[in-house]
Amino acid sequence: MMDEVSASPAPDWHVSQWFNTDPLTLTALRGKVIVLHAFQMLCPGCVANGIPQAQRIARFFGPDHVAVIGLHTVFEHHEAMPPQALAAFIHEYRLTFPIGVDLPGKTGPIPQTMAAYAIQGTPSLILIDRRGLMRKHALGTEEDMRVGADIAFLLAEAG
Amino acid sequence: MMDEVSASPAPDWHVSQWFNTDPLTLTALRGKVIVLHAFQMLCPGCVANGIPQAQRIARFFGPDHVAVIGLHTVFEHHEAMPPQALAAFIHEYRLTFPIGVDLPGKTGPIPQTMAAYAIQGTPSLILIDRRGLMRKHALGTEEDMRVGADIAFLLAEAG
Amino acid sequence: MMDEVSASPAPDWHVSQWFNTDPLTLTALRGKVIVLHAFQMLCPGCVANGIPQAQRIARFFGPDHVAVIGLHTVFEHHEAMPPQALAAFIHEYRLTFPIGVDLPGKTGPIPQTMAAYAIQGTPSLILIDRRGLMRKHALGTEEDMRVGADIAFLLAEAG
Amino acid sequence: MMDEVSASPAPDWHVSQWFNTDPLTLTALRGKVIVLHAFQMLCPGCVANGIPQAQRIARFFGPDHVAVIGLHTVFEHHEAMPPQALAAFIHEYRLTFPIGVDLPGKTGPIPQTMAAYAIQGTPSLILIDRRGLMRKHALGTEEDMRVGADIAFLLAEAG
Repeated sequence: MMDEVSASPAPDWHVSQWFNTDPLTLTALRGKVIVLHAFQMLCPGCVANGIPQAQRIARFFGPDHVAVIGLHTVFEHHEAMPPQALAAFIHEYRLTFPIGVDLPGKTGPIPQTMAAYAIQGTPSLILIDRRGLMRKHALGTEEDMRVGADIAFLLAEAG
Repeated sequence: MMDEVSASPAPDWHVSQWFNTDPLTLTALRGKVIVLHAFQMLCPGCVANGIPQAQRIARFFGPDHVAVIGLHTVFEHHEAMPPQALAAFIHEYRLTFPIGVDLPGKTGPIPQTMAAYAIQGTPSLILIDRRGLMRKHALGTEEDMRVGADIAFLLAEAG
Repeated sequence: MMDEVSASPAPDWHVSQWFNTDPLTLTALRGKVIVLHAFQMLCPGCVANGIPQAQRIARFFGPDHVAVIGLHTVFEHHEAMPPQALAAFIHEYRLTFPIGVDLPGKTGPIPQTMAAYAIQGTPSLILIDRRGLMRKHALGTEEDMRVGADIAFLLAEAG
Repeated sequence: MMDEVSASPAPDWHVSQWFNTDPLTLTALRGKVIVLHAFQMLCPGCVANGIPQAQRIARFFGPDHVAVIGLHTVFEHHEAMPPQALAAFIHEYRLTFPIGVDLPGKTGPIPQTMAAYAIQGTPSLILIDRRGLMRKHALGTEEDMRVGADIAFLLAEAG
């Protein structure tokens, strides 16, 4: 994890549609630790590891102090993963945490929030502290013990 | 498994499109043991258990005596699982066994081969013996030891 | 698996003590397929993989046609694995299949049945057909599908 | 986890023999978070879950701020788990964290440290904060995310 000094503010989200929630903004969540989970519904590593871990985080830490947010960052096979297919996916996998659909890029395959955060692939896990600073940015799935500890360290900091 | 006496002939397949193969028919595969794996690409139990098992069967038994055939039997969320989405799914999950798209039903959500076989849901595993008789018909995923034994028993029978 | 022509008769067992059964002999089990599972109670691969697989074999195939036999082949740390420690192990792990204690070697650390079968380490799995021929001899743990199929092939042979 | 106010000081350890370390005391470890893992070498839940988790804790947090200590609390099958058998177990399972042998009870089967801590069974996980207070006392194995978070919360407290 980055320390507070070297961390930069988390960019705003560009979302075309939200599932499981009213529209959400970083500003409105200020004061909570935010777990941003970037995924694609047809990414095997997301389905097998990343998404179940996001569900465990949401279940274990609860919504009062930690906000788990899914971000559907489609950067390949766009025609196979439109929002209506994501809706079926969310239903079948019984996902209950808020999920935003990243706004398609204007000039290329990379959607806008994915570009703003410089996310390199899926799954990716980003931790944002209570003050809105980006403190962790990891491609792939890390072990639960590390993720649990990282979130706890951020919760222990002053808001 | 059903014994040969009580088993009925496997119905023909109604397939709109094949992946990983030229068009296949039951008749052309006569003499081999056929493992018919019915799945939907957005079915969690298929992705977690059924499809990986089908891949293990194909890898372990090899194609000379056992034909593993996937059947995409979409009976819900049809708009989320068209053939072009299945193509992306097959690519991402690196599936190499032949997969047929079950022909949509004429009057309802159940596709035609699914109806002909009376498949109750996904994943389902159907074993067809060397003579074209349906010998096993199981909803859900059974343990590998049982499936390995069932296929071996059919292989040990005269063609 | 070895074919019947190249297979040799399974050697007799030299056992100092039996658990979960009256004394057993190869001859008395003739007509059944025998699954001989060689293990040590302090062998991590046995505890994690081999012994649970032996339990699955016993549960799946049942005792009428398949005899699962554990053989405690202690060849290292002898002082840590005497029969009374094995008794506690069998109790704690709730093992219910018959287990024989391999008779210590007269001149070295390798017990007598282990030497007669040329077992190279633990866990090892040996399959003996209905006629008493040794048809498979594998060091380490193989996947359940393969083991299930191998046992089924032997069951399908005439006695 | 207990808060600091309601937590009581961790009792001293009564150990007959140490493995992987010189003798250790609570006092000497003051300032570190201590993870006390009570186990028995023939306890299936310890071998499958508790001990591997202790190893993950030691590997992830490192020895500078967190001390993972195994405590061999034999309260049943005493004859099967003497220190020389534990030595073979530690060797076979390649355990590298410090492990103490709990001193046998003077009047019953429960060893002395187990009694002092009121440990109810194995595996048990006890967390002691930097000031020597007992903050968590859990029977069985908890999920890694919770354990990682609990240790991080204690690390974030002043020493």
